[in-house]
Order: sequence, then C-alpha cells, then structure tokens
Amino acid sequence: MRPAQRENFQRLLTPRHIAFVGGRDAAIAIREARRRGFAGRMWAVNPRRDTLEGVACVPTIADLPEAPDAVYLAIPAAAVTGALGQLSAMGAGGVVCFSAGFKETGDAAAERALIAAAGDMALIGPNCYGLINYVGNSALWSFEHGGWSPGYGAAIITQSGMFSSDITMSQRSLPMAYMVSAGNQAVLGLEDFLDAFASDPAVRAIGLHIEGLQDVARFERAALRALERGVPVVALKSGSSHIGAALTISHTGSLSGANELYEALFARCGVISVSNPSQFLETLKLLCVTGAPGGARVAGFTCSGGGATMLADHAEKIGLSFPTIEGADRGELKALLPEIATVSNPLDYTTPIWGQAEHTYPVFSRTLTAVAPDFTVLVQDYPATGLDDSKVFYLNDAGAFACAASEQQVPAAILATIPENMDSDTRRMLIEQGVAPMQGIHEALNAIRDAAGWSAARARILSEMPAPLLRPLAEAALTGLTEDTGKEWLRTAGMPVPAGRTVTAQGAESAAAEIGFPVALKMMSQHLAHKTEAGAVALNLADPAQLQTALTQMSNAVAAYDADAVTDRFLVEAMSPPPLAELILTLRRDPQFGHALVLGSGGVLVELLGDAVTLLLPCSVAEVKRGLEGLRLAPLLSGYRGRPAADLAQVADAIHALSRAYLQDCAKIAEVEINPLFVYPDRVVAIDVLLHRVAGD
Amino acid sequence: MRPAQRENFQRLLTPRHIAFVGGRDAAIAIREARRRGFAGRMWAVNPRRDTLEGVACVPTIADLPEAPDAVYLAIPAAAVTGALGQLSAMGAGGVVCFSAGFKETGDAAAERALIAAAGDMALIGPNCYGLINYVGNSALWSFEHGGWSPGYGAAIITQSGMFSSDITMSQRSLPMAYMVSAGNQAVLGLEDFLDAFASDPAVRAIGLHIEGLQDVARFERAALRALERGVPVVALKSGSSHIGAALTISHTGSLSGANELYEALFARCGVISVSNPSQFLETLKLLCVTGAPGGARVAGFTCSGGGATMLADHAEKIGLSFPTIEGADRGELKALLPEIATVSNPLDYTTPIWGQAEHTYPVFSRTLTAVAPDFTVLVQDYPATGLDDSKVFYLNDAGAFACAASEQQVPAAILATIPENMDSDTRRMLIEQGVAPMQGIHEALNAIRDAAGWSAARARILSEMPAPLLRPLAEAALTGLTEDTGKEWLRTAGMPVPAGRTVTAQGAESAAAEIGFPVALKMMSQHLAHKTEAGAVALNLADPAQLQTALTQMSNAVAAYDADAVTDRFLVEAMSPPPLAELILTLRRDPQFGHALVLGSGGVLVELLGDAVTLLLPCSVAEVKRGLEGLRLAPLLSGYRGRPAADLAQVADAIHALSRAYLQDCAKIAEVEINPLFVYPDRVVAIDVLLHRVAGD
Repeated sequence: MRPAQRENFQRLLTPRHIAFVGGRDAAIAIREARRRGFAGRMWAVNPRRDTLEGVACVPTIADLPEAPDAVYLAIPAAAVTGALGQLSAMGAGGVVCFSAGFKETGDAAAERALIAAAGDMALIGPNCYGLINYVGNSALWSFEHGGWSPGYGAAIITQSGMFSSDITMSQRSLPMAYMVSAGNQAVLGLEDFLDAFASDPAVRAIGLHIEGLQDVARFERAALRALERGVPVVALKSGSSHIGAALTISHTGSLSGANELYEALFARCGVISVSNPSQFLETLKLLCVTGAPGGARVAGFTCSGGGATMLADHAEKIGLSFPTIEGADRGELKALLPEIATVSNPLDYTTPIWGQAEHTYPVFSRTLTAVAPDFTVLVQDYPATGLDDSKVFYLNDAGAFACAASEQQVPAAILATIPENMDSDTRRMLIEQGVAPMQGIHEALNAIRDAAGWSAARARILSEMPAPLLRPLAEAALTGLTEDTGKEWLRTAGMPVPAGRTVTAQGAESAAAEIGFPVALKMMSQHLAHKTEAGAVALNLADPAQLQTALTQMSNAVAAYDADAVTDRFLVEAMSPPPLAELILTLRRDPQFGHALVLGSGGVLVELLGDAVTLLLPCSVAEVKRGLEGLRLAPLLSGYRGRPAADLAQVADAIHALSRAYLQDCAKIAEVEINPLFVYPDRVVAIDVLLHRVAGD
Repeated sequence: MRPAQRENFQRLLTPRHIAFVGGRDAAIAIREARRRGFAGRMWAVNPRRDTLEGVACVPTIADLPEAPDAVYLAIPAAAVTGALGQLSAMGAGGVVCFSAGFKETGDAAAERALIAAAGDMALIGPNCYGLINYVGNSALWSFEHGGWSPGYGAAIITQSGMFSSDITMSQRSLPMAYMVSAGNQAVLGLEDFLDAFASDPAVRAIGLHIEGLQDVARFERAALRALERGVPVVALKSGSSHIGAALTISHTGSLSGANELYEALFARCGVISVSNPSQFLETLKLLCVTGAPGGARVAGFTCSGGGATMLADHAEKIGLSFPTIEGADRGELKALLPEIATVSNPLDYTTPIWGQAEHTYPVFSRTLTAVAPDFTVLVQDYPATGLDDSKVFYLNDAGAFACAASEQQVPAAILATIPENMDSDTRRMLIEQGVAPMQGIHEALNAIRDAAGWSAARARILSEMPAPLLRPLAEAALTGLTEDTGKEWLRTAGMPVPAGRTVTAQGAESAAAEIGFPVALKMMSQHLAHKTEAGAVALNLADPAQLQTALTQMSNAVAAYDADAVTDRFLVEAMSPPPLAELILTLRRDPQFGHALVLGSGGVLVELLGDAVTLLLPCSVAEVKRGLEGLRLAPLLSGYRGRPAADLAQVADAIHALSRAYLQDCAKIAEVEINPLFVYPDRVVAIDVLLHRVAGD
C-alpha cells in the first residue's frame, strides 16, 4: 500500500464513523456493525428513506456531515464510480464495496474506472462481503456473522464471501482478530492485507483462502515479512482441479494457476498449506493459542487404549514422533500409575485414576519431565450437553494437564476424537489457560506437525532469505532448437555435455574416430521434436561399420517418418557410462510466477510417478539440494545397494549454476528441458536437451 | 453363534427383563437403561443394599424371581466365573460383563474359565461398555450415552469402550440401530455381531472399529453374508502404527496384524475401509439415509463460487466425476439461471435466486435431467443458532432440492463446508425427507466415493464369490533352499524358469555349451542368502573364457565373503532377454490370515515406492489381474512407449496357477519369493527364487 492508502486502511479498520450507502443491504450492514458492538457514529445515505435501521438518512453523499473514516457501499454498479469519486474528493478513509458487476462479469473497463475513482482510499472489493474487526469491534459486513475474540487471534482473508461467512458461523472458538472478504481485489489485494496484518499486534496467525494471486512477487515479499515477524501464515488454495480452475476464473476473474507453482511459492515463503476447511480453522487455532512448537516430539495422554492407538497411528503416518519412555523414568512412572496401565507414549493412564487430579497431575508432570517434548496432548471427548454428570472428571484431568504443561512450559492441546465432542464453555476455558482446544485427532496432529514444520522452515529461510521473485515476462512465440545448438548453450552455461561434433554424413566417421568409439549418432533437424520415435537416434555404435549402417538406416527411417525432416546434419557423440540415476530438468517461464526450475525422476519413473519438485527462481543451492533429497529416487543418489553415493552438494551446485545462466539469458531463452540428466558420483552430464528460444530473437 | 447362543443373543438384544448385578456401576447401567426408555422389568442384585437407583435389590443371583433375559454384570473379576455359572444354570439369556481383569491383564486362564462358565449364554465382554438397542429401546451400558434413531440405522461394534461412548456423544444425527462395545470378545466377537446384525431389518449399515480380529476366516464369511444381504460394512482399523500395534496388544490382548493384510481382507469382502473417526460416522450416515449410489457420477449445486471450486477440487482428487453439461441442456439451463451465473457442474446458481424455491427448483430439476447422475449434492452452511434470520432461505432451497431429487429418484445429500454448520433440527428434517445431512465437504465426497465403490465391489464379488480363507497353519521353523532346488519346485508347479543345469565347476563349460552362450553363473550354497552381495552371481558370460574367469573370481569372492559358504555347486543358466517389466512375487503363510500372495514392482521400484498389492488366498484369476492393474508399473504392461503390451490375462493365469500349487504344498512349503519375475508379452519367467521349506519336513 502507498503511505496515504495505508493510513486510510487504518481508518477503515478502526473507524470513528461509518457511512452506510444503499438500501436493504446497507441496512443489514448497520445491524452487523451493531452486532459487533460498533460504538462510533453511523450515518446512512439513501435518497428515498428517512432512516435505515434507525439511523437517519441523508439523501446524498455530499450531504454527509464530514468525511467518513469508513464507507459501506451497496448501490448499483453503474453508480459506484461516481460515488467513489465523491468520497475520495471529500477525504473519506476506506470503502467496503459490496456492489458487484465488475471484472467478475467480464467488465474490466468498469473495474479500471473504479480503481481510478478510488484514488488513495483503501477499498475492499467490489463483489465482497467486507471487513470485520473482532478486536476493535467494528464491522462493514454484508451478512449475519458470528465469531469470537479473546482480544487476539487470527486475521483471515478469503476470496469467497460465502466461505468467509461459513467461517464466522463455525463452532470452534477460533480466536479472531479480523475477517476480510476480499472480492475482486480491485484496489487492495491479498498481498496488502497480508502485509498490513502481519504487523498488527493482535494478530497471531494469518489465514488465507486463495483462489488466485494477482501479484506473486508482492505476495512473496509480504509472506517473508510475516515470517520475519514470526506471524505464521496458513493458506487454503482452491482451484487445483480442472473444473475448479475454470470456475475460479468465472468467480473472481483471477487465474487459478498451476498447483505445483503455488506449492513451490508456499514452501519458499514458509507458508503452511492445507486443503480442508476444518483443517484450516484448526491449524489457525493451534497457532493462535499455543504458537508453533519448536519441534515434532510429542507426549500424549489418553484415558483409553483405543484413543492412544489412534493418536499413534496417525502420528506415525504424518511424521510426528512420540518418543518412548525408558530406564528410570519408566519405573518411576509405573509407580504413579494403576497396576493395569502400561508405561508408553502415548500413555493410556487408565480409568482407576481418571478424573482424580491428585493422581493424574503427577503422571502428566512426570511424563513431561521424562519425554521433554516439544508439544503435549491429552485426548478428551467431553460428554454432550445434558449428559454431562461426568464432566467434572474430565475438567479435573484437564486442569491437572494444563497445570503440568504450564509449569514445564510445554505448549499443550486437548484433543477431541470426534470434532464436536468439546463444548464451547470448555473450549474457552482452555484457551484462557493457554491450552488449545482441538477438534478432531487427525486435524490436531496435522496442525502440530505443520506448526512444527513452520518453525523449522522459518529458521532455515531466515538464515538465507530468498531473493525476490522476478516479474513474469510477456508471453511470446517460441522456436525449438536442435540438440547440438542446445548443447552449445549448455556448454557456455557451464553444464557438461558429452564430447561431440556436428558433421555431415561424410564427416561422421572421422568425427567418431576423433571422439573414440563407441559413439551415439543423432540426426539434427528442427522438424524432429521426438527424435527417438522418428528413428533419428542410434546408440552404442561400436565401430565404423556400425556407424555407416546407422547413417543409412537413420536417413531411411526419418524419411519414412517425415520426409521434410531429413537433413544431412548429424551429431556424433561419445557414449556416457550408466549413471547412478537419471533426472529430468526443466527451466521455464510462467506468465504468473516468473520462472521455475522443475527437477524430476527421469526415465520410467517420471511417467509412472510424476516424481518431481518445482522451485521458483531465483533459488538457492540449498533449495536445489533439498529438492533433490525430496525426490523419490533420492535413495539412488545416496549409496543405493552398495553403489557409490553422489556428491549432492556438487550436483546441486551444477544445477543451480545452470539456473543462474538461464535467468541471465531468459529474455531470449524461454525453456530448457534436459532429459535425461545423468548423475554420477562427482558430476552431472546433460545427455539430451531441448531448448526453446523466443521466436524472432 | 450356536443356535442356543443365537436365541440367547436375541433375548439379550430385546430383553423382557434385565438383572443388574453390582454396586455403583450397576446403578449407572440402570440409569442408562431408563434413559433409553427400557420398559421391561428390572431387578438388582446386591447383598449390601436395599435398592439401586430405586430398583429393589435381592442379595444373590439365586434370589432372582426368574431367569433374566439379560444381565448386566459389574462385580469383581474373581466373582465373575461363579456368577456366570449360576446364571447359565438358571437359564439366563445374555450377559454384558463390565468387569475387567481377564485376558487384557494377561490372565488367559481366568478368561478361559469365564468362557466355560458362560455356557450357551450370549456374553458381551468382559472389559466392555456393553450394548445399546436404539430401535428396541433397551440398554446395558456403563456410562452416560447419547444417540438417536429414526427407527432404523447403523449397528456399530467397537473394540474401545471410550470410542463407543465418544460416538454416542457425537452431534451428527447418525441414525442408530445398535451399539456394541465388544471388549475382550471372550464369547461373542466382532464376527458374531456382524453376522447377527446383517440380518436385522433395522440395520442399514454396520460400522466396525477393529483393533484386531480373532478369526479372520469367520470374519470373511460374515462380511460376505452381509454383502449378499446388501448391508454395507464400514471398518475403522486402528493399530496400524508400530506403537499402535503394541498398544493394541496391551489394550485388548488381540494381535493387531499387518495393515496390508487387513486391507486385503476388506477389499476381498467389499468392506469399506476408513481411517478417520469423523469419516467413519459420515460414511455410515450416508449409507443409512440414502443407501449406496450405483456409480460415481455426481451433480453438484452451490450458491457460492468458492464452494463449487472446493467440491470440484476434492472430487477430482478422489475420483468422483462431475460430468459437464453440454448442448441443448446448457442453453435451457442458462435460461433458468440469473445472467451472472455460468452453466457448469458443480453449479453455482448464484445469489439472485438464492432461497427462492420457485427459481431454484427448476434449476435443480433441469440439471438432474441433463446430468442423470448417480448422486446429487447441494452445499449449504446453515447459520448458527441465534444468527438465523436467513435460515428460511436455506430451507427453501433445501426443500426444492429434496423435491427435485426425490422426483427423479436420485440419492441426495446436503453438505456443510464446515462440519458443524448444520443444526440438529435441519439434519433430522433432511433425514425425514431421505436426504443425507453431511458434515464436511471432504467427508461427504469421500463417503459418496466409497459408497459407490461398495456397489461396484458388491456386483463384482457376488458374481464370483471368494473361496473361504484357509485356517492359519501352526508356526514352524523354516529352512531356505538353494535357487536350483527352488526352481525345481517352480518347474513342477508349472512356472517357467530359464533353461539351466546344476553342475560342478568342472561341468560348467559343457553345461553352458549345451544351453548356449551367453549364460548366467550362480554358486549354490545354503549359506548364501544374498548371492549378489557375496559375489556369487555372474551374468552375460559370452564364451568359455569368460565362464572360466567367472568361476575363479566367484570362488574367491565368496571365500572372502564367508569361507563356510563356498561350494562346488553351480547353476549355469540361459540369459533371459530384457522383459517389459520386473515383478516381485511372494507367497507366504501368516499366523492370523492364513496365506497371502504379494505382487510388487521389482527392481528399483519396489524399494523406492513399496509398490505392492496383497491378496489373501485362495484368490481368483480376476483378483490377480486386478492386482496387476493396480500396480504403479501397470503402464509398463499395457504398451508403454510403443513397446508391446503384456497379455495380462495370461500373466494372471500363470501367477494364479502358482498360488494354487503353493496352497497344495503349503504344509511343506512356507514361503516362495520370486525376485525378479520377468514379464514378457506372452509369458512370465522366474529369474531367481528363494523357497523356504518347513524345517525337518
């Protein structure tokens, strides 16, 4: 945001006065502002009514007594630009524009006019539900809303009004700070809200519902600033499916973008990515109440063998660890437990001591000392309202647990096996004690894992801050170059390729003799995108006779495949020995994300598995190395079945250097695909390459 | 169950009278029976009290006025066997034994005595919460309980008392028929309950929480009978993790078993497998309310672009299809929708017609005609209680949707994006209309996918009923046989192996000449489990000179590896050409599941991916074929990159025949591991085999 806009955003967020412009929808917004406890002045603008919800109306914006800090605008689309011009001229702060009928209906011109008219005002929308300030008690909101705040909480920004409404109606006691339904993001976008809320002291975590980003590079900077400030960001990206991507364009007019690129962006900036709405809320709740744990070692308690097993099963699946309790700790803990209990982690402390804090507290406390975990959980499904004679027993154990965790400064959560089995009173009471009331065993464990992962990612990313992403280049027509030309570029870029010569058929034999048999022979033709299928590749030619035969057969085969493709240009190359592993490497431009490097398993694996990792550029050597380590073929690179290991640092270095060279030339070179890239213990060799140059360049 | 036991189980399920034996716990059970509306006679047995919860006590079991249909037993473990003997002798029907202190504490003798004393009585437990009959209004239950029934519903059997309690407390309006907490399953086990409930007309689906099965073969028969009767079974198996498996033994004294074997069992019997407690309840709810759809084609409606996108994203991920709407249908539907709406499936019908049944009904109806789906869903998040001014609009659309679906006889569900965003009144109202009230978009779509999959599996399985599983064989010591002996057995079993001779070093050359070069050479030694690592394998020996060199090198290498392993027995074999794909095939016994066939990707893939499918034996040719088709390497078998395809029927036939041969010999042969099994277009060849024979046989 520009400085003036930023100031105006602050006025919109915590207004002294709000002007509601419109009819029925403005009336709803007035009710919602009151529901939130808005205590400032309210004005209504409506030429045909005396009052709206008891607020006296003035007929026009010009009749407002002074420039409002905030405006709720719900008038026909055609009148919006005029109204904005007036408001901007009079010095209004910010606007929630509920009105629809702009970019989302295809009318880009109307949206441009709206942007111009808004001037320095902080405008949310159009085509949005608006803004709720839970900590400052203000709302410019288009629908009945629920939600609750203990004075701090999550800032949630969504690209679906209905979804933001669903969230405010949820029954999870998620501490809320702000809710923004961003609509078309004509003026203020996700990136702006992210940036503004990351420096708000009431905000402990930020939740983003993303259908499509408008400015990936700005998002990166904002997300990294949030990371620096220690505010975790959780993203729920929708539109990953084919139908979903199409719907997204018609819904908010924004491009959905390839899922792998979004995941690459989130990984780059330490953004936690989730795919399920409940998980979104639960992860935010954990982050708001306990903060992110420093690691993934958990101590777990249940009063049920079944619950302990469910904890252990899911934890193992997602990579959370429940360290075992051994030695003296084991004996001491055994002495604190009923005879029927087995010392384990997770621990079923068993019903004989259930609900008796004087017996459960020592068990909790001693276990935490023994395990010294990064996080601790207690599984409790509270009885339903009206069936809660036994609730006091649950509360006794909950209190003992909270006390033991707090004394040892271990972040703690109580988990209900079935999400709704924890009532609102209990949830709020736990939050007051700093214990996260988590709904659903799987959701809770996933949240802990992701929060611990965020801590690790944060340390790593802050130690080597990613370079700013590059702005996307304009789309352009491309020309594919022949392999020898591609390899020429690779050679200048420092990427090893096999020794080779480009020659005519006549010169092939002497070239081969110079290089040394056995050799590979490939016909160079701009018309051959798939050389192997065309018969334009012959490998392992052992002597001049085999070479001659191959030359003849190749010309015949290619002529049969595509007569126009036949040339008298051949690449004669040294054969490379079998590698430890084959990779596919792609460097390419993207109209939304700038540039990307894709590393994947080569050969059969890539097609059977789609085993690939995507990194946005520029990237660091460390990222390339981590990417390689994350591939499913990674075991092939680390000394598989007695074979030598590859020097991953060296491999990563070579790939990274190539990505730098690509970025230097990226105005001219649009795509580089090396397939395969052979990996040896101490080097890589590009065996084949397809390079696309920007046409006409 | 035996006939007498079965009759007694019916008495336990719908008792005319219940005797409560014990103190405080028996008092709780009396309250719970009343809470369920039990209208029969109640007696209490307690030597030290006059009344329990208002029920007059007799001092001993002998003092009961007549033999009770049902008994709730909560007395010290030491007294249980005596009490059971008395009850059995007097002709009592069934017993819920709450008392603990038997097998789960390691006291197998006490449990055996309990079983003997129970005689023909139907006994649930010990160490259990008991039984609730929701349709017949009776309960023998150890804890406060909730839950609801419209007169039909799910029968749920759990192996964790606490989890069964959590389920009764859940707020999902799951229609309930019965709840059983099975405890130690000393007399009646999961298999018995499954069998009994599958023929109960009130039961529309059966839910099983399984920690470990006691009798896999009986489970198979019971599950297949339920399948025949059209009653879907949903299993939540816990104990899949290492810690979880250990906890399960200490919890219920039963073996957890390998996860793949359970999954193989479930697939074999058409049991739906889920891993999340919420999913368990939601899948059961869908099955109880709408039944299983015939296919996976869905028509979806939302009044939110964001909701439609979320539907589409998850559906694509899990393989549900939302067919597009084309041609004339498209135009007609467009005319029924507001201008801003886009015709699509899922369809965002947009707010201008929201809540107006006269406008939404035609849209629902026309879409269903156009798509002719197997199932239809409408996404609605109802406002929270107290914020529900707009609820009437939601109900209007819900009514229009239910009506359109019912007219066209399409099974239907309404889905809340966030699980709790649908109140109890709405849920029950929808159930009355035959519409499933589903909580959570992901959970709902998963349930539809699994229910459709159940229909398909049912048709397939009933058309070729699986043979009964074999009883497990006693565990025995095993001896590994050398490759040549293993191949001898393969040859007699009809499995092709490369031409070969077992010879001394001296005879190697003439054997190779007879077979034809190139050959493979392997040293045969019982001490060499890993021939390759020991240097005991040489491949592609092209001529006598190479063979002689290999013989010398091999003897030296093995001597260096393990001097005791050196022999003068060599297998000389023809080399096999490169195959389309390499498999690993294992046939083996299991102490719980009888016998299994494991097929996996061979070579590098199996270790990098763990790509394998497990089938229980005996299996059919069709199952083997489906197993092959399910492997990740399947594309390699179906004409990959212009290579020929394998005749999968023939490959499956060969593997199936081998499994039959193994079963015939399985008293002697405990394990067969072929690695690799080369697959060619028209045949398979076992390249290496490790065969384990029962020792001493």
